[in-house]
Amino acid sequence: MKKITLLLFLIPFLSFSQSHEEMIKKIYGETLTNSPVHETLRTLCKDIGHRLSGSPQAAAAVEYTRQLMESYGFDTVYLQPVMVPHWVRGEQEIARITNSEKLGTFDMKTLALGNSVGTGPDGVLGEIIELSGLDEVEDYGKKLEGKIVFFNGKMDPTVINNFSAYGRAVAQRAWGASDAAKYGAKAVMVRSMTNRLDDIPHTGSLRYKPLIGQIPAVAISTNDAERLSRLLKEQDDLKVYIRTTCEMKEPILSYNVIGELRGSQFPEEIISVGGHLDSWDVGEGANDDGSGCMQAIDALRTFKALGIQPKRTLRSVMWMNEENGLMGGREYAKVAEQKGEKHIAAIESDAGGFRPLGFSMSGSEEQKSKVKEWKDLFTPYGVWNFEQEGGGADIGPLQPLGTLLIGLRPNTQRYFIYHHTNADVFEAVDKRELELGAASMSAMIYLLDQEGL
Amino acid sequence: MKKITLLLFLIPFLSFSQSHEEMIKKIYGETLTNSPVHETLRTLCKDIGHRLSGSPQAAAAVEYTRQLMESYGFDTVYLQPVMVPHWVRGEQEIARITNSEKLGTFDMKTLALGNSVGTGPDGVLGEIIELSGLDEVEDYGKKLEGKIVFFNGKMDPTVINNFSAYGRAVAQRAWGASDAAKYGAKAVMVRSMTNRLDDIPHTGSLRYKPLIGQIPAVAISTNDAERLSRLLKEQDDLKVYIRTTCEMKEPILSYNVIGELRGSQFPEEIISVGGHLDSWDVGEGANDDGSGCMQAIDALRTFKALGIQPKRTLRSVMWMNEENGLMGGREYAKVAEQKGEKHIAAIESDAGGFRPLGFSMSGSEEQKSKVKEWKDLFTPYGVWNFEQEGGGADIGPLQPLGTLLIGLRPNTQRYFIYHHTNADVFEAVDKRELELGAASMSAMIYLLDQEGL
Repeated sequence: MKKITLLLFLIPFLSFSQSHEEMIKKIYGETLTNSPVHETLRTLCKDIGHRLSGSPQAAAAVEYTRQLMESYGFDTVYLQPVMVPHWVRGEQEIARITNSEKLGTFDMKTLALGNSVGTGPDGVLGEIIELSGLDEVEDYGKKLEGKIVFFNGKMDPTVINNFSAYGRAVAQRAWGASDAAKYGAKAVMVRSMTNRLDDIPHTGSLRYKPLIGQIPAVAISTNDAERLSRLLKEQDDLKVYIRTTCEMKEPILSYNVIGELRGSQFPEEIISVGGHLDSWDVGEGANDDGSGCMQAIDALRTFKALGIQPKRTLRSVMWMNEENGLMGGREYAKVAEQKGEKHIAAIESDAGGFRPLGFSMSGSEEQKSKVKEWKDLFTPYGVWNFEQEGGGADIGPLQPLGTLLIGLRPNTQRYFIYHHTNADVFEAVDKRELELGAASMSAMIYLLDQEGL
Repeated sequence: MKKITLLLFLIPFLSFSQSHEEMIKKIYGETLTNSPVHETLRTLCKDIGHRLSGSPQAAAAVEYTRQLMESYGFDTVYLQPVMVPHWVRGEQEIARITNSEKLGTFDMKTLALGNSVGTGPDGVLGEIIELSGLDEVEDYGKKLEGKIVFFNGKMDPTVINNFSAYGRAVAQRAWGASDAAKYGAKAVMVRSMTNRLDDIPHTGSLRYKPLIGQIPAVAISTNDAERLSRLLKEQDDLKVYIRTTCEMKEPILSYNVIGELRGSQFPEEIISVGGHLDSWDVGEGANDDGSGCMQAIDALRTFKALGIQPKRTLRSVMWMNEENGLMGGREYAKVAEQKGEKHIAAIESDAGGFRPLGFSMSGSEEQKSKVKEWKDLFTPYGVWNFEQEGGGADIGPLQPLGTLLIGLRPNTQRYFIYHHTNADVFEAVDKRELELGAASMSAMIYLLDQEGL
């Protein structure tokens, strides 16, 4: 008798997990066999290229993804207007050491930081002072006056999660210009954000603090940072000439691109899956974040291909302007709130097109526990880690609506080779790993759709 | 009272795991900060290059790794003699379609399979017959007589573990020549073992069955295999001219290279950690298996660097001839048995220098359970999967001695881009991922050494 009771008890559970197990197998199978995600990424990277907010390429990417979602037969595809900053890099930057006793004059590999003001056509020349990070600014204080501050903080190689190492080191890039300007510095140079020693400068955004004069900022490659640091130990009057013609123009109209599969049972409950369509204005924005965009579109394509009719409303969203403003993510949440939409969950893929290893989450314990119950359905695909905290930059603004925020977490050990550089090109993304990420997103929204939250 | 008992009960466990946790953190920290493993791999790949058994480069690799282990101050470093096959590729191979109505004459990207006999300088010309795998040989039977058999079996893209997909598909490469020869085929062509569609042929060993005539065999790239298959659907008298001058010479003397840290408490208990030093005679053998070799040496270097005195005897072993004979692995086990050595565990890294995700095991349930208890010590480093079966080719012969066999299991999604090709070069290996693998091996032998089995 006991046995029978036990069996009866198990039946609903078995059928739950078995049917889901089968459908998830189909989702991965469809993606690994038929998905065009690698080819669509090729088009985005090779035919359009990098696409900073406000650029013609960003406009082309809006149109391309709109057409792509239309071509897949999504129920609705539309553009959500959003005003975005319009920063332009201008001419090739110069960061030139002018008076090295050992090496004479030489140029370093450099890129202006995004949002930075330019030096103007004459450039600036100044003595260099090296700091290991923002912490040292207060110690030096007035000694920074008239100097060009070289922030040489490193990503900690012993931190396994290199997004965490990045998070700890990136403050000097974000705030270094304002903090140094407070004490009268002329300009700043920042060590590129990567564990590698190489010749590739990494751009990325800075933010100017209010009421402090805005000074120019550039990144230099890690090899140049190491060399400069060695030279400074021997010669403390070393000077650098920096020339950048970048500038922030007037905000410009752009769009989030949204494609929707309408829910059959609970159409008012929305599940968003997306990436950010803009990229830095170097390389091709392949890992950051062409991959996430193409995966998010493919996640819904797979529903169509397998004939899965969602219960809830699924949206593939291409957020605009993650890199230097987050205006797309903010607008999306603002409209959602104004319309009183019910966003139960949002997933973002913005950590590169690498092999997926897990999902991070931000939300209530109840929401997270429910998703963690599905973990065993993902482990056969190598997606095992559901313990990390965090969602994604673009979905962050949805948090006040009570939305569960989910981030696709791939293997990011190679991510900072490419991040914000000329090296972030289509060839840096592996077809199979990209597909596994797309399938993982598709499987997650399938479960969210079927089970609700 | 109950609480006190519980606490007393917990103390030994806590101190066990805390001290191990700390030491493992040091091992990863040392490796990620100071390890020369990426530079030693560069030397092996760039200064020596590919190193098929019997080649001068294989001899150079023996000497290089002997010196490297000496330079790290291992207690003993010695060579273990082993006779190995000596196969040579000869001149650039030709696989030429001679009579395509659509395309005329064209050459395919090809490599002779390892151990294959050559066609001789005149080559062979024959009509092509396409089979999807070994299963079809019996169906065709005598129809294969005088033909050149084209095995076009594919790796299944829906199998997530692509070593499994490889394992299922590779039989046509290993046995296709003998199976086709049994019915009078002149030669065989095999589709390269990769999920990718590209122009890179993958070599690898075949084995001739006794009492069957030996016929030449080549691999062609997947793009060529796809094209050929399309052409054959339109024209069934398509002919191919194959020319290879490879040959198997007399066996030659080579060596396993062994470096040892002597145990302080149980020196008679041996833990081996290694990779195979030979590679195919294309590319640089970077992922297969220069990475594993350099990681295995580095795993012991880390003990020296951290001043860890092992209780048991630790050996770093460079096995010779995994690719086309396994004579090194066999000799190692034979000598171990003859000397009555007690090999408690052996770890092999032979799945590429990619980010480690787990350890596979072959051994008793008791042995495996003990190692699985340590799993939580590895998860902070992303090494989570301890459930796979298997050790490694070179350590397989130790199984009869009751040794626990362990394989380092990295992310292998990109492995079959490089495997046995010209593309398997130093640049295909990421420094940080390589280091994480070395540290994982070092941490595993640390636990095996401390806890025994």
